[in-house]
Amino acid sequence: MALFTKEEALNYHSSKRKGKLEVISIKPCRNQKDLSMAYSPGVAEACRAIHADTEKVYDYTNKGNLVAVVSNGTAVLGLGNIGPEAGKPVMEGKGVLFKIFSDIDVYDLNINAKTPDEVVAFCKLLEPTFGGINLEDIKAPECFEIETRLKAEMGIPVFHDDQHGTAIISAAGIMNALEISGKKIEEIKIVVSGAGAAAIACSNLYVHMGVKRENIFMFDSRGLIHAGREGLNEFKKAYAQAEDKGSLADCMVGADMFLGLSVKDAINQDMVKTMADNAIIFACANPDPEITYDAVKEVRPDIIMGTGRSDFPNQVNNVLGFPFIFRGALDCRAKTINEEMKIAAADALARLAKEPVSQDICDAFGVDKLEYGIDYIIPKPLDPRVLTWLAPAVAKAAMDTGVAQIQLDLDQYAKDLETRMAASKARTKLVVDSFGYDI
Amino acid sequence: MALFTKEEALNYHSSKRKGKLEVISIKPCRNQKDLSMAYSPGVAEACRAIHADTEKVYDYTNKGNLVAVVSNGTAVLGLGNIGPEAGKPVMEGKGVLFKIFSDIDVYDLNINAKTPDEVVAFCKLLEPTFGGINLEDIKAPECFEIETRLKAEMGIPVFHDDQHGTAIISAAGIMNALEISGKKIEEIKIVVSGAGAAAIACSNLYVHMGVKRENIFMFDSRGLIHAGREGLNEFKKAYAQAEDKGSLADCMVGADMFLGLSVKDAINQDMVKTMADNAIIFACANPDPEITYDAVKEVRPDIIMGTGRSDFPNQVNNVLGFPFIFRGALDCRAKTINEEMKIAAADALARLAKEPVSQDICDAFGVDKLEYGIDYIIPKPLDPRVLTWLAPAVAKAAMDTGVAQIQLDLDQYAKDLETRMAASKARTKLVVDSFGYDI
Repeated sequence: MALFTKEEALNYHSSKRKGKLEVISIKPCRNQKDLSMAYSPGVAEACRAIHADTEKVYDYTNKGNLVAVVSNGTAVLGLGNIGPEAGKPVMEGKGVLFKIFSDIDVYDLNINAKTPDEVVAFCKLLEPTFGGINLEDIKAPECFEIETRLKAEMGIPVFHDDQHGTAIISAAGIMNALEISGKKIEEIKIVVSGAGAAAIACSNLYVHMGVKRENIFMFDSRGLIHAGREGLNEFKKAYAQAEDKGSLADCMVGADMFLGLSVKDAINQDMVKTMADNAIIFACANPDPEITYDAVKEVRPDIIMGTGRSDFPNQVNNVLGFPFIFRGALDCRAKTINEEMKIAAADALARLAKEPVSQDICDAFGVDKLEYGIDYIIPKPLDPRVLTWLAPAVAKAAMDTGVAQIQLDLDQYAKDLETRMAASKARTKLVVDSFGYDI
Repeated sequence: MALFTKEEALNYHSSKRKGKLEVISIKPCRNQKDLSMAYSPGVAEACRAIHADTEKVYDYTNKGNLVAVVSNGTAVLGLGNIGPEAGKPVMEGKGVLFKIFSDIDVYDLNINAKTPDEVVAFCKLLEPTFGGINLEDIKAPECFEIETRLKAEMGIPVFHDDQHGTAIISAAGIMNALEISGKKIEEIKIVVSGAGAAAIACSNLYVHMGVKRENIFMFDSRGLIHAGREGLNEFKKAYAQAEDKGSLADCMVGADMFLGLSVKDAINQDMVKTMADNAIIFACANPDPEITYDAVKEVRPDIIMGTGRSDFPNQVNNVLGFPFIFRGALDCRAKTINEEMKIAAADALARLAKEPVSQDICDAFGVDKLEYGIDYIIPKPLDPRVLTWLAPAVAKAAMDTGVAQIQLDLDQYAKDLETRMAASKARTKLVVDSFGYDI
C-alpha cells in the first residue's frame, strides 16, 4: 500500500511555492550599509581578496558548501530517458536530501545535453563555483566516460551517485553479512541482475574489496555477459565470463549473493532455494524488488535479505551515503572522492550497524528494537548518527590518502557537525513552518 | 567617507556561514511519508506529469521563479577581468538583490569560459532548469554577441544587466529631465564617455526612444569614435561620427546630456560650463563619478545631475530595474525581454518619480522630503513601490507585444506581489536572525 496518493504527491510539489528548494539571502540587509557590503562597493573587498589568492573563494563565498547536481535526464529513477525538465523534481529532491541530512547547498542543473562531450564541457566550466559535482540519472554507458573524464580533468570531487551510492551501501551490507556467515570475500560467488551504471559500479567496488572478477556473473536483458557475445561495451566486457554458463537460474545455484538492479520478479523462490547457505540477496529494484522479503523468507529463512524499501529490513538506500560522503569530502577540501573514501564510508556504516540502537531511534522508526543480525546489517537511513560516523571517516580516508587540502581534528569535527546540523534543521523548520502548509 | 571598513566588508562575507546565499528545503520533511513524496517513489508522479506535458515543469519545480546569474568574470564591477572565482561574491550579491527586492531565486554560475562560443553553449544547456538568464560582468564586445545569440536561440528571457540596466534607469531619467526642460528627444545632443557594454546599450535604447544617432558623440579611451578610425568593432562603428569632431571638451559645447560610464574625473567644471541650458549629466563611474554633484552645482545649478552614488540625488542604480523586470517577465512567462518591456520599465520609473512620496519613505532615506524636480527625477532604489509599478508594467508590455505565455489580471497581480514580498521578507528575516550575527 502506498504511503500517499498521486494527488498528494503532486500537491506536495506545487503547494504554496512551486518546487522544493528556495534560495535565501542569509546576511543582514537592514540598511544602506549592509547593502553596500553585500553588493557594490563593499563586495569589491571580497573580490580583491579572492583575486589575490584564489583559495579565499572558500572564505568569502558559498563554494565550499555548494554541490551541483547535474543531470541530463536520460536515466531518471525507474522512468528512463524522460529528459531534463521531467527529471528536475528528482534533482530538486536530491537537493532536499543533501540539505536535510548534511546541510549541503545544492544547485540542481538539469541540462539539455545529449553527448558525453557536452556534459563534460558543461561540468568543467562549473569548477570556480562549486565545491563538488554530483552527477545524477545519466544513462550508461555514457555516465562512465563522463565521470572518468571529469575526475581526471577537475580538481573538485565528482561523484556519480547512481553508480557509487548503491555500491557503497551494499558493500557495507556485504561486510557485515560475511562476518555473520563466516565466509571469505575472496571466495564468494555473486550473481548480478542488471548491467547498468549501478551494477558495474557495485561490481567494481566489490572487486576492489577482494571479490574475484571470475566469481561475478552479470546478466543484462539478453542474458549472461560472456566472451562469446557480440557488441558488448568495454564496461560490460570487463565482467564477461569466459564462456556461456547458462541462464540466471543456472547461475544462481550455489551463489553466495544475488544483487538485483533490474526489474520486479527477476528471480523466484525456486532460484532462491538453490543458493548457498547464509546467502545474501539485495533486491534493489524500486518500488517493487526482484523478489519480496516475504517470498525469500518463506523458503530460505537463513538468507540475509535487503531491498530498496523502507518497510522491510536492511534498506539499501543511497541517502545513507552521498550526503555524508560529500560532507566529509567538502570539509577536508578533498580534490576527489577516491576508492579508499568510498570503502571508509562503507566500513563506517558496517561498524555503526553493530552499535546499540537507543530506544528513541527505534521509536522513530516504529520498531521495538534494532539489533545487529541478519535483519539489521545496515543502519537505518534516518539514523542521526550516520552523519558523525561517515563524514569524519571519509575525511580521514581523504587525509590518509593525501587528497585532503585541509587537515581536520576529527573529534572536534564530529562535534562541530552535530552543532551545525542542529542549527540547519532549526533554520529549515522556521522556513517550512512559515509557509503554513496543509500538506 | 566609506560606510564600512575593509574588515567589516570581509567579515560580512565570511561570518557564521560563508557567502551570502543558502539553499533551503521548503517542503515538510517530517516523516517517511514526506520523504517518499520529496524523493523516490512519490517524486515520480511529478516527473510523469512533466514528461506528459513539459509546461508542467512550471507547476512542480522552482523553474518559474529561478534565474541563472551567469558570469565568466571578465568585467567585474570596476575591477576588470578578475576571473570567475573572484567574481563570485558579486554574483552571489546579485542573488541577494534579486531575492530581497523581488523574491526571485538565483543560482549564481561563475564559469571558466573564455570564448563567446563557450558561454553560449553553456547557457543554452540551462534552458530546462531556469525561467531566465541574467548575464553579468562579461566584457565587451563579447557580451553583445553572447546576448544576441542567446536571445535568438533560447525560449526564455536572456538579459545582460550591465548593458540594459543602466540604459533603462537612465532612460527614465531622460524622460523626466526632458519634460522638465521642455526639450524634444529628437533634438538632444548627447556626449557619451565610455564605449563598453553599458555605453553601447544606453545609446541603442536612446536611439530606440527617438534620439538621432548623429547626435550621439561617443568617446573611448582613444578619443571620439569616428569613421576615420581604424579597428573599431561593429558595435562602436554604429556610433561613429562621419568625421573627427575634436576632443571631449570640444564636443561638450552645447551638449544637452553627458553620460559618463568611464572613470573618475573624466570631465571638469570648464567643460560643464559650456553645456546647453538645463542639460543632464549622468556621471555613473563607481564609486567616484566622472565629476561630483557638488562640482557641477557650483558652476551650473540648472543642470539635472545624477550619479551612481546613494548619497547624492538621482542615483542611477540598476537595482531599480533587473529585479522587477525579471519579476514581470517570469510571472507572465515572457519568452524574451524585448525593447518594449525595457521602455515600459523606464516609463513606469519615470511616472513613479512624479508620485507623492510618503513621510515614511522619506524617513527611511533620511531626507526631509522628496518632490519631483531636478533633484528627484528617478525613484529611490529602496522605494517599496517600485515592485508594484514596474513588474506589472513590464508584464503588460510583454502581453501587448505577444511574448507573454500567461495573461495576467494586472490589478490582482499587483496585490499578489505585495503579499508575496511581505511573506518573502518575513521568511528571509527568520533565517538571517537565526544566525545571530554581530555584523
